[in-house]
Amino acid sequence: MQVEFINPFLESIVHVLETMADVKATPGKPQRKEEDTAQGDVTGVIGMASEQAKGSLAITFSSAAIFDIARRMLGEEVTEINNTVTDLVGEITNMVTGGAKRGLAEQGYDFDMAIPAVIAGKNHRISHKSNGMKIIIPFSIIAGKFYVEVCFE
Amino acid sequence: MQVEFINPFLESIVHVLETMADVKATPGKPQRKEEDTAQGDVTGVIGMASEQAKGSLAITFSSAAIFDIARRMLGEEVTEINNTVTDLVGEITNMVTGGAKRGLAEQGYDFDMAIPAVIAGKNHRISHKSNGMKIIIPFSIIAGKFYVEVCFE
Repeated sequence: MQVEFINPFLESIVHVLETMADVKATPGKPQRKEEDTAQGDVTGVIGMASEQAKGSLAITFSSAAIFDIARRMLGEEVTEINNTVTDLVGEITNMVTGGAKRGLAEQGYDFDMAIPAVIAGKNHRISHKSNGMKIIIPFSIIAGKFYVEVCFE
Repeated sequence: MQVEFINPFLESIVHVLETMADVKATPGKPQRKEEDTAQGDVTGVIGMASEQAKGSLAITFSSAAIFDIARRMLGEEVTEINNTVTDLVGEITNMVTGGAKRGLAEQGYDFDMAIPAVIAGKNHRISHKSNGMKIIIPFSIIAGKFYVEVCFE
């Protein structure tokens, strides 16, 4: 997996959060994910397939981060991971992959998009099951942390 | 979503567990999933897209069920949801969707398969984010329960 492959996802999440939630998200250094270390409270996960590559993307939010994003995007105080929050995470995941898809198409990758699923549960962790390298990119917003994980083969 | 659409998944999981783990899995009545009620300890989730339909599939295992399946398939006692277990759940999810894909092709649905992701964490729950009906099928094996969730639009 090339760095050029990851950039469309990074640019897309920063853009989505800036335009939809007026939140500035600062990416940390992309890391190779050796263990299933990233833990979060709610995760959007989506599989992506093209003729040239296939894999999966996950966006894992801490409660603090997603509650802040929900407040900003929906104008609603949320204090638990309810259907409002899982819907929001599904929508964010769709918007991020939709944006990344355009960037990837410019690189010649034409992905069919599948529907995201959202997982809720305290401190769950994600394993991507492809033979490709797993890259995890930590992000910070003022309210908390979230993680983007990309794995393609 | 038609019942005919679900049957290939049911037949495939029963077949996979019977041939790979010598476990007889008994399906319960398929139910419309109104709430995100099914909880489990480890879940394989995969997105599927064809020209005619797209959606997602999740297979959620209780610890008791997957530990028994691991013992039978791998000949190994496992007592925690470690990488061995998440690899196994990823493989089972791949085999089940691979088998279902053949049955769906006979019905004229030609799916690209994406890579599964596996989620581990006590009592997590899954939300499928498509506009289609969500169907959950409970299964019993002697050691415990697991659930297959299918959502297509």
